[in-house]
Amino acid sequence: MNKAKLYLSLFRRTNRVTESLEKYLSEKQFQMDEAIIGYIKKLEAPERLKAAMKYSAEAGGKRLRPILMAASCESYGGTLKMVTPAAAALEMVHTYSLIHDDLPAMDNDNIRRGKPTNHIQFDEATAILAGDGLLTYSFEIIASELAVSETKRVELIRQLADAAGPKGMVAGQVLDMQAEDKKADLEQLEQIHTLKTGRLLRYAVTAGAMIGGATADQIASLQEYAYYLGLIFQVQDDILDVQGDPELIGKPVGSDETNLKSTYPKLLGLGGAIQQKELYIQKAKQSLKEAGVESSVLVDITEYFGNRDR
Amino acid sequence: MNKAKLYLSLFRRTNRVTESLEKYLSEKQFQMDEAIIGYIKKLEAPERLKAAMKYSAEAGGKRLRPILMAASCESYGGTLKMVTPAAAALEMVHTYSLIHDDLPAMDNDNIRRGKPTNHIQFDEATAILAGDGLLTYSFEIIASELAVSETKRVELIRQLADAAGPKGMVAGQVLDMQAEDKKADLEQLEQIHTLKTGRLLRYAVTAGAMIGGATADQIASLQEYAYYLGLIFQVQDDILDVQGDPELIGKPVGSDETNLKSTYPKLLGLGGAIQQKELYIQKAKQSLKEAGVESSVLVDITEYFGNRDR
Repeated sequence: MNKAKLYLSLFRRTNRVTESLEKYLSEKQFQMDEAIIGYIKKLEAPERLKAAMKYSAEAGGKRLRPILMAASCESYGGTLKMVTPAAAALEMVHTYSLIHDDLPAMDNDNIRRGKPTNHIQFDEATAILAGDGLLTYSFEIIASELAVSETKRVELIRQLADAAGPKGMVAGQVLDMQAEDKKADLEQLEQIHTLKTGRLLRYAVTAGAMIGGATADQIASLQEYAYYLGLIFQVQDDILDVQGDPELIGKPVGSDETNLKSTYPKLLGLGGAIQQKELYIQKAKQSLKEAGVESSVLVDITEYFGNRDR
Repeated sequence: MNKAKLYLSLFRRTNRVTESLEKYLSEKQFQMDEAIIGYIKKLEAPERLKAAMKYSAEAGGKRLRPILMAASCESYGGTLKMVTPAAAALEMVHTYSLIHDDLPAMDNDNIRRGKPTNHIQFDEATAILAGDGLLTYSFEIIASELAVSETKRVELIRQLADAAGPKGMVAGQVLDMQAEDKKADLEQLEQIHTLKTGRLLRYAVTAGAMIGGATADQIASLQEYAYYLGLIFQVQDDILDVQGDPELIGKPVGSDETNLKSTYPKLLGLGGAIQQKELYIQKAKQSLKEAGVESSVLVDITEYFGNRDR
C-alpha cells in the first residue's frame, strides 16, 4: 500500500529507531490519520469550516500524542480501537493549538510542516473558528464515541480540559509569550514546557493507561514518566534547532539563536543539553519500571523521543 | 444591598416587564455573576490570563442564558443551585464566543457593552487565549462540579459541545461571515440565527429541564420552544437596531442599515418584523403548554425577550 509506505518513510531515517518500532509507529500513524479525518468528514458543518479543520488535521503530523496513548493503553492489555476516540480528540486539541499559535497575533508563522499555515491557506477568521471547532468537537467525541463507562468518560473529559485549558496548555502559551522578551532560567523553562507541551503528553500516557485498565498507583508512576518524556521532547527540539537537518525538521536551523528565547543549549551548552537529556531518559525508564511496564513499547518510544531527527 | 440595586436597575426600565419578573431576573443575575467570577477566581492560572478571562466574564452581560437555564430547571421542580455549574459553563462559552467575535479578523469591534473589547483592553494574543481558556474551562466545570449522575453529565457535555461547536454556534459564525457580503433570504437568515444564537439558548432551556427532571417528551417540546425563543431574540435585536435607544442598547442605532447584512426589518419592513415576532411569541407559548409549563416564569421570560429595550 502506497500510503502506508509513505508513512513508513517518514520514520525510517530517524536515528537509532529499530525497524520494529518504525513499523509500529507508521502503522499507528496511518490508523490514527484515518480515524481523525473520518471524524471530521462525518461532521454536518459548513464546507469551508470542515475544509479548514481537515486541512490542519491532515497536515502531516507524526501523531505522537495519539500513538503514545495507544502504546500506553496496549501496555496494560488494551487495544488501539479502545483509545481511538480519545486519541483522535487529543490530536484535535493539539491541532487547534497549532492553528491558534500560528496566528499573526501569536507566533505569526506562515509555514508549518512545509505547508501554508491555516490562516494563510484560508483566512484569519476561518483559522480562529477552525481552531475553536476542533477544540469543541474533541469533547463531543469523547462524550459520545468512547466505549468506556460514563464514570471514566467524565474523568477523561475533566482531565483533558484540565490539561489543555487555563491551568495547562493555555497557561503555558501565556507564560511562553511573556518569556519571549526576557531570559528565563532552567526552572522557568521547564515550567513553560511542562505546561505547553508536557500536559498533553501526560494526558496521552495517563488516559491510555486508564482506558487500558491500569491501577491508580501505576497511573501515578506514569505521570512521572510523562513529565520526563515531555522534557526529553523539548530538549531534543532545542538540540535539533542547533544541529538538526533543516530538510528533516522542516524549518531553518538556528532560529532559536536569533531570538532571545531561552533554550537548553543556550543555558547548558550543547554538551550539557545532551547530558541533561540522557539524565531525563534514565529517569523516564525508572518510572516505567515503577509503573510495571519496563519492557513495553513505551521504552522504545522514549528512546525515539530523545533521538528523533525531526 | 447596593450591588443588588444596581442589578435591578439594569432591568427596571425594560418595557412591559412586571415587577416580580424584574426582581427574579436581577436576583438570578446577581447569583450567576457571583458563581461565574468565583469559578474564574479559583483557577490556578497565570494572572494575566485570569484577568483577561475575568474582564470579559464580568463585563455586565444580562446572563440571559444562565437565567433561562435556571428558570427551566425550576419549572420542573429543580433549584438554581442544581444548575449553577452548567449555567456558569454556558455563560463562559457565550463569553468566549464574544471575545473571539470581536477580534480584528472577525467583527473588529473595539467596544462591547460600553467597555473596550478584550483585545483592546489586553492584546490580541491574550484575547485569543482568554477565549480558548473559557471554552476549555467550561467543560471542566460541568465534568467536575455538576451534581447529577455521570450519565447526565456526559450527556450535558455532549450537548454543549454539539451546540457550541462546528455543527452549532461555530457553524453559525462561519455562515454569518459568508453572508455578510450578500443578501440572505428569510430562510437563510433563520438558519444563521438558529445556529449562532439559538443553539446555546436551546441548550440553556433543555439542560435546565434535564437537570430539573423533565421527561424526554417535555424536553422535546422545550426544544421547539427554544427554537422560537431564539428567533424572538433575534427579531427584537434587529428591531432595536432600527428604533432602540442607543444609550440602552450600548451601540449606535442603524448600524445594520449601513452594511449589507440581512435583517428582519429589511426583509419584512418594521411592521412586518413586529408581526413576525408576535407570531413567534404565540408559537413559543404553545410549545410551553405542550411541555407542561404554561404557567411558569418561562412565559414571562418569553415576553421579556420579545419586548426588551436593550
